[in-house]
Amino acid sequence: MNEAWLDEIRWTADDLVPAIAQQADSGKILMFAWMNRESLRLTAAEGYAVYWSRSRNKLWRKGEESGHRQKVLGIYLDCDEDVVLLKIEQQGGIACHTGRESCFYRQLQGDRWQPVEPVLKDPEAIYRIS
Amino acid sequence: MNEAWLDEIRWTADDLVPAIAQQADSGKILMFAWMNRESLRLTAAEGYAVYWSRSRNKLWRKGEESGHRQKVLGIYLDCDEDVVLLKIEQQGGIACHTGRESCFYRQLQGDRWQPVEPVLKDPEAIYRIS
Repeated sequence: MNEAWLDEIRWTADDLVPAIAQQADSGKILMFAWMNRESLRLTAAEGYAVYWSRSRNKLWRKGEESGHRQKVLGIYLDCDEDVVLLKIEQQGGIACHTGRESCFYRQLQGDRWQPVEPVLKDPEAIYRIS
Repeated sequence: MNEAWLDEIRWTADDLVPAIAQQADSGKILMFAWMNRESLRLTAAEGYAVYWSRSRNKLWRKGEESGHRQKVLGIYLDCDEDVVLLKIEQQGGIACHTGRESCFYRQLQGDRWQPVEPVLKDPEAIYRIS
């Protein structure tokens, strides 16, 4: 497959691009992560979100441990060619490692960040090795 | 006002945080930009989005030239405290400097980025100095 579309992206000095994952049907923003060239190429090729874990310094197939994979319905690029948007279908309905649907679960209320979304599943149960 | 909520953010080495702007009613993702501490403080205080322009190295009151201001209805923080989400009401219905509603107007189709959103207003008309 022609990879010219990957060359159009303006990668950071670390060869990464930020990626936003949005639930396709509800429009809810679920998470934000980073991709390198290989993870974006794999995301397009496999149809499931693959990120680059900056903390673990390796490819991160979202849901590889939790089963909460993200089926990719569309990949979009912004006007500056430096941010990617994924429209996805979140399997299990949970994107956040805290057990919530979305990572953006705190809202600024007055001068405090308040949790405004419920924990749907105990995080320990999500990642428990059987 | 207590600024402890700003201290909770994990700023980058450049003292910035990425910010996603989402149209509150439709859920559409309109743009992605960066904020420094002062711009986020002003966003909360003024109720309109203020970003940090990395290219111009200055505060950027979104819409200051175009009139396409972003009224902020909610400010959210992610689980890692390193990404901010703004739910906004986009004035003029145009967030992108290309004259489109959203900056994410190109979709990957096969191996090409294809524009999938119309230009609503000629960019020259948006920024023309009268």
